Amino acid sequence: MSTVDKQLETVRATIADEVPNRISISDVKYEGPELVIYTRDPREFASDGDLIRRLASKLRKRITVRPDPEVLSPADQAREEISDVIPEEAGVTDLDFHADTGEVVIEAQKPGIVIGRHGATLREITQKVGWTPEVVRTPPIESSTVQNVRNFLKQEREDRRDILERVGRQIHREPMSDDEWVRITTLGCCREVGRAAFILSTPDTRILVDCGDKPGAEDEMPYLHIPEGLGSGATSIDAVVLTHAHLDHSAFVPLLFEHGYDGPIYCTEPTRDLMGLLTLDYIDAASKEGRTQPYDSEMVREAIKHTVPIEYGDVTDIAPDVKLTLHNAGHILGSAVSHFHIGDGLYNVAFSGDIHYDDTRLFDGAVNDFPRVETLVLESTYGGRNDYQTDQGDSERDLKRVINETYERDGTVLVPAFAVGRSQEIMLVLEEAMRNGDIPEMPVYLDGMIWEATAIHTTYPEYLRDDLRDRIFDEDENPFLADQFEHVDGGDDEREAVADGEPCIVLSTSGMVTGGPITSWLEHLGPDPDSSLVFVDYQAQGTLGRRIQNGQNEIPVGGGSGRSNTVSMEMNVETVDGFSGHADRQGLENFVRTMNPRPEKVLCVHGDESATQDLSSGLYHEFNMRTFAPQNLETFRFL
Amino acid sequence: MSTVDKQLETVRATIADEVPNRISISDVKYEGPELVIYTRDPREFASDGDLIRRLASKLRKRITVRPDPEVLSPADQAREEISDVIPEEAGVTDLDFHADTGEVVIEAQKPGIVIGRHGATLREITQKVGWTPEVVRTPPIESSTVQNVRNFLKQEREDRRDILERVGRQIHREPMSDDEWVRITTLGCCREVGRAAFILSTPDTRILVDCGDKPGAEDEMPYLHIPEGLGSGATSIDAVVLTHAHLDHSAFVPLLFEHGYDGPIYCTEPTRDLMGLLTLDYIDAASKEGRTQPYDSEMVREAIKHTVPIEYGDVTDIAPDVKLTLHNAGHILGSAVSHFHIGDGLYNVAFSGDIHYDDTRLFDGAVNDFPRVETLVLESTYGGRNDYQTDQGDSERDLKRVINETYERDGTVLVPAFAVGRSQEIMLVLEEAMRNGDIPEMPVYLDGMIWEATAIHTTYPEYLRDDLRDRIFDEDENPFLADQFEHVDGGDDEREAVADGEPCIVLSTSGMVTGGPITSWLEHLGPDPDSSLVFVDYQAQGTLGRRIQNGQNEIPVGGGSGRSNTVSMEMNVETVDGFSGHADRQGLENFVRTMNPRPEKVLCVHGDESATQDLSSGLYHEFNMRTFAPQNLETFRFL
Repeated sequence: MSTVDKQLETVRATIADEVPNRISISDVKYEGPELVIYTRDPREFASDGDLIRRLASKLRKRITVRPDPEVLSPADQAREEISDVIPEEAGVTDLDFHADTGEVVIEAQKPGIVIGRHGATLREITQKVGWTPEVVRTPPIESSTVQNVRNFLKQEREDRRDILERVGRQIHREPMSDDEWVRITTLGCCREVGRAAFILSTPDTRILVDCGDKPGAEDEMPYLHIPEGLGSGATSIDAVVLTHAHLDHSAFVPLLFEHGYDGPIYCTEPTRDLMGLLTLDYIDAASKEGRTQPYDSEMVREAIKHTVPIEYGDVTDIAPDVKLTLHNAGHILGSAVSHFHIGDGLYNVAFSGDIHYDDTRLFDGAVNDFPRVETLVLESTYGGRNDYQTDQGDSERDLKRVINETYERDGTVLVPAFAVGRSQEIMLVLEEAMRNGDIPEMPVYLDGMIWEATAIHTTYPEYLRDDLRDRIFDEDENPFLADQFEHVDGGDDEREAVADGEPCIVLSTSGMVTGGPITSWLEHLGPDPDSSLVFVDYQAQGTLGRRIQNGQNEIPVGGGSGRSNTVSMEMNVETVDGFSGHADRQGLENFVRTMNPRPEKVLCVHGDESATQDLSSGLYHEFNMRTFAPQNLETFRFL
Repeated sequence: MSTVDKQLETVRATIADEVPNRISISDVKYEGPELVIYTRDPREFASDGDLIRRLASKLRKRITVRPDPEVLSPADQAREEISDVIPEEAGVTDLDFHADTGEVVIEAQKPGIVIGRHGATLREITQKVGWTPEVVRTPPIESSTVQNVRNFLKQEREDRRDILERVGRQIHREPMSDDEWVRITTLGCCREVGRAAFILSTPDTRILVDCGDKPGAEDEMPYLHIPEGLGSGATSIDAVVLTHAHLDHSAFVPLLFEHGYDGPIYCTEPTRDLMGLLTLDYIDAASKEGRTQPYDSEMVREAIKHTVPIEYGDVTDIAPDVKLTLHNAGHILGSAVSHFHIGDGLYNVAFSGDIHYDDTRLFDGAVNDFPRVETLVLESTYGGRNDYQTDQGDSERDLKRVINETYERDGTVLVPAFAVGRSQEIMLVLEEAMRNGDIPEMPVYLDGMIWEATAIHTTYPEYLRDDLRDRIFDEDENPFLADQFEHVDGGDDEREAVADGEPCIVLSTSGMVTGGPITSWLEHLGPDPDSSLVFVDYQAQGTLGRRIQNGQNEIPVGGGSGRSNTVSMEMNVETVDGFSGHADRQGLENFVRTMNPRPEKVLCVHGDESATQDLSSGLYHEFNMRTFAPQNLETFRFL
C-alpha cells in the first residue's frame, strides 16, 4: 500500500468518526489539492451547514462533497427544480449536468444571487436535487477566450479528473527526506526584464515559479538546458505556479508539456484564461514573423487542462511540504503575489511577481501582509534610484494635454499598450475624460487583442476594484461598453482608413513595439508630425519601443510577408509614465516598508542591472536587511 | 559527418602537411585527451626527435605516435632486441606486448634508465623494434594494489581503448553554445569537513570535482538527489576530476558508475591506485559494520578502468572549452591543486583540494603559481582565527617526549592515522628518531592499510620530495624498509598480544576513530592509564576521535559482529597537531598571499562553519578580495 493510500485510510476513519451515522460515505479521494467526499446522502450532508467546515479544520484539508452518482435525480427533473429555486434576477444562461461527478455548472449573469447568503441557495439546490452546484459568471461582454476555455474544459472533464486525481496523490504523498533546506534557483529575469523563471526547491519538492520569454530575445532560453532548470526533464518539476499571464512570465508554460511535464499549474482563473489568449497570440505572431513556433496550440490546451485555479487568500496544499497562497498583486487581472509556506513552520518565501503598490483605477494595490515571510523575491522594474513615476493624476492630465494638442493639429494619438492591463486602465481614463469633457469625444480604436482582453476583465469583476466591479454589474454603467470604443477587426485597410481619417485615439499591441498591429500603425502614422506616439508602459532594453524612446528615427516596418521597409519617424513621441502596471521605486520601498513582519532577505530581480542593484542597495541601507541582486543561474540556499 | 569527424579531417590534413613524405600515416584518432597517430614508419618518425613536438605545438594537442600493427616485429624477437638496448642496471622486471596498439609496457626498477636522456633510449627501442615503449616502475616494496591495478588494466585493454576513444571524441566535439558563463555548485564540504563535491559548469560542460563521503555520516548524500548534482543522471556529467584519494573526496566515485556514469576520471596515477585501495576498504568496512555496501567492488574496477592519469603540470583538454592542469598539493601522495582554464582565455578557476603549504618530510609544499586564476576554491580545515599549528620541529619533539614518557611507564603509544599520508610522515619521523637515538628502538606496528599504502608511496617516488625519492631508490637507505616497522596481519589475537607485550608504537587506521582496527586497539589499550593515545591529524565533528579529544571517557567498541560494549577511556590522550596534512591558518593565508596574480574571488570550503567564516573574513580584510563561506547546494555564477 502506498503512503498516500495509507494516509487516505486514516482520513476515511476520521471522516467516519465525525459524520453522523445517518449519512453514508461511499468514497473519499484526492482531486488536486482537494479532498473529495462522495456521499449517498448529499441532502443530509448539505443540511448540516457546519459539517464541512468542521471536517476541513479537523483534517486540515480543503474539502468538496459530491453525491454518489447513484442517488442523483435525473438531469431533466433537476433542471426544472433548480430553475424553481434560483431567483429570476440571477440571469441563468446555462445549466450543464455532469453525471460522473454529480456536478451541475450554473452559468449566470449574477452568480452572487445563485449562491445566496452564505451559500444558502446552493445548499437548497443540493437538498432538492442531490447535484452539487458550481457557479460561473456569464461574461457581460462576450469573450471567445472564456467561451473556448469553458467548452474545452467541459469536453475534457474525464481527462481532467484523472489529472487531478494524480496531482492529488502527488500532493498528499509522504515527504521522503529528513533534510531541511529551501533553495531558490534563478533561471531568468535577473538583471534583466523578461523570461521570469525560478525554481523553489526543498528536499522533497521542486516548484517552477513562472516560465516566461524575453521580449526581443525569444530564442535565448538557457535555463531550459541546465539540469537545475528543465534540463533534467520537465518531469522533475512537481508544480508550476504562474504569478500572472504576461508573456515574460507565461510564454513557455505550454512548452513544458512538450517537454513531458504533466503536472499542475497553479494560478488564478483569469490568469489561466489570459495565458490561453496571450500564448495563442504568441505562437501566432511567431509564425506570422516567419519564426518557428516554439510549440503548437495543442500545448496551450494541455496547459489549460492542467491548470488548478486558486482564489486569492485560499491556503492550498501543493506539495507534501508546501502550501501556496495567492494574493492580489495589483499589476494586471488575476496577478498574484505568491506566498509559499514550507514545512511545518520551517520557512516562508514570497514571490512578488509584478506588482503595483498603490491602487489604480482597475485594481487595489498589492497585498504585502503575510503572517510570516523570511525571504521576498521582489520585482525591480522601476527599482533604479531615480525611477520615481509621476503621480497618476498628473499623468492623466499629461495624457489629456497630449491628446488635446494632437487633436488641435488634426493628428492621431497612437498608444502602444499591452493588451492586458494598461489598455483597460487607459480606457477607463479616456472614458471618464470624455464623459467629463476634458477631451473631445472621438473614437478610440482598440487593436490587437485589447477588445478580447477587456471582455475577460468583465468576466472576472471580483478581481477588480469595488467601484469598478459595481459599475460592470450595471450594464448601463459598464465603462468598457461606452460608445466611443471601436474594435478594429478589418485588418490593414481599416487601419489605413482610420489613420487617414478624423482625429482619433488608437490603442494597439504590442506594448513594447516588438510586433503586432502597432507596426502597421507606425507604418501609416510614423511620418506624420501632427500625430503623437505615447508610451504609457515600461519599454524593455532591446525592444523597438525602447529604441524609439531613445530617439531612433528610422524604424523597420512590415513583417514576415517579405516586405522589410523602414519609415522615418516624424511623430511627436511622448512618454507618460504614471500609468505603469509596475510600482515605482517609491512603491517598491513602500511595499517592503509596510510589511509586518519584514523579510530577512530580499532578492531584487526583474529589472535592468542598475535597477536591481540600486534597489538592493537602497533596501539594505533603508531597512538593514540582507539584499541581493542575483544573476541568472545562481542558487541561493536559505536555512 | 559529426563535428568531431570534420575536425579530425582538418587535423589529418595538417599532419600530412607537416610530416615528411617518406613517413606514411595510416590512422589518426583521439584516445582520451590525446591525439594518436598510427604510422607505418615508426622508426622514421622516432628518428626526428622534434617532429612530435612541432606537431603538438601546431595542433595544440597532446600527441602519441604508434606503429601500425602491421609493421611490428614479432614480440619474441622484439623482447630480445629490447633487452639488448636497455642497460642491465635498469632492473627490468617485466615486458608486456600489446599487439593491438603496438605498445610494450616495460616494468623496471629504474624507469629513468629505461627512458634515457631526453627519451633517447625509448627512441632507440622504437627504431629497433617498431613497438612503442611505455615505462612503469617496479614497486620497491611489493604492493598488491599496484599489482592488481596493473593486471586489471592489462586485462581490460580493449575496453579501455573503446572508452578512451569515446572520451576523446567527447573532449574534441565542437562547443554548442554561444552563451558564456562559469558556475560552481557546492554539493558538499561547505561549512563542514567531508563529502567534498562540486560541479564546475559552463554552457557546454559539467565537471564533477571530487565525490566524497562524510566520516560519521555515510548515508547523508543529498547532493546525489538534486538535479544539479547527480539527480539528473550521472550521464549529465562530462568529466570527474579527483583532487586526491582520501575518502572524503573519493568514496562515491565508484558509485557514479552504478548510476550510469561512464565518462573519464582525471587524477594522478597514485590517486587512482590509492582510490582503489581506499574505496575497496571502505565497502569492506561497511559490510563488516553491518551497513549496506554503497556499491560493490565491480564499481571500483569500473572507476579504475575509466581513469585517465595526468601528471603534474601537463595541460590537458578535458572538454571542448576546458583545460585541466594538476599541480602538487603537498597533502598526500598524488594530491593535486586542480586548475581549470575555461574557454579561450575566458576564465580560470583553481580548486585547492586539500593542501599543505609548507614542505613536509614527504612532500614539497603546495603549488600556487598559475598564469591566471580568477576564482580560488580553498580548503579551510584549519582556517579558524586561532588555528595556528605548532611548527613541525616542535611537534616532533613533542611526539618524542610523549613516546619517551609512555615508554618509561612501560606503556604503548597508539596513533590513529590515515593510512595514506600522515602514517608515512610519522614513519619517517620515528625512523629518524630511532636512528638518532632520540627515542628507544622499539617495534612500530602498522595496522590497517598503512603497510600497503606505504608500498604505493614507494612505487611513485616522483611524487615525493627529492631527498626522500633518492633514498627510496637506494634500497639500503629506504626508510620505509627499516627493521622496526612491523606489518600487523594476524588479526585481533596479534593485537591483543602486542597490546599486552613490550612497549611499542602502533599506527592504526582509521584516522578519525570511525571504525577499522583502531577500535580493536582501543578495546585493548583504552583502560590502560600507562599507554598514550596520540592524535596527529584533524578530527572532524561527529567522529569518535573528536569526542575523545573533547574528553569523552566511555567509548563504544566492537563492530557489526553483535558485540556492542563500551570501555572506559583511561589512556593518556594527547594531541600533537604539527603533523597535519593540512595547511594551518598561516599556511592558508600564505598560500593566497604568495599567489601572483591573486584571485578576485575565494570560496572558503572544507572546514567547520566557524573556520570557513573566519578564513573568509580574514582573507577579505587582509587582501581586499571578494570572499565567501558558501553553504552546500548553492550555485555561484562567475561572468
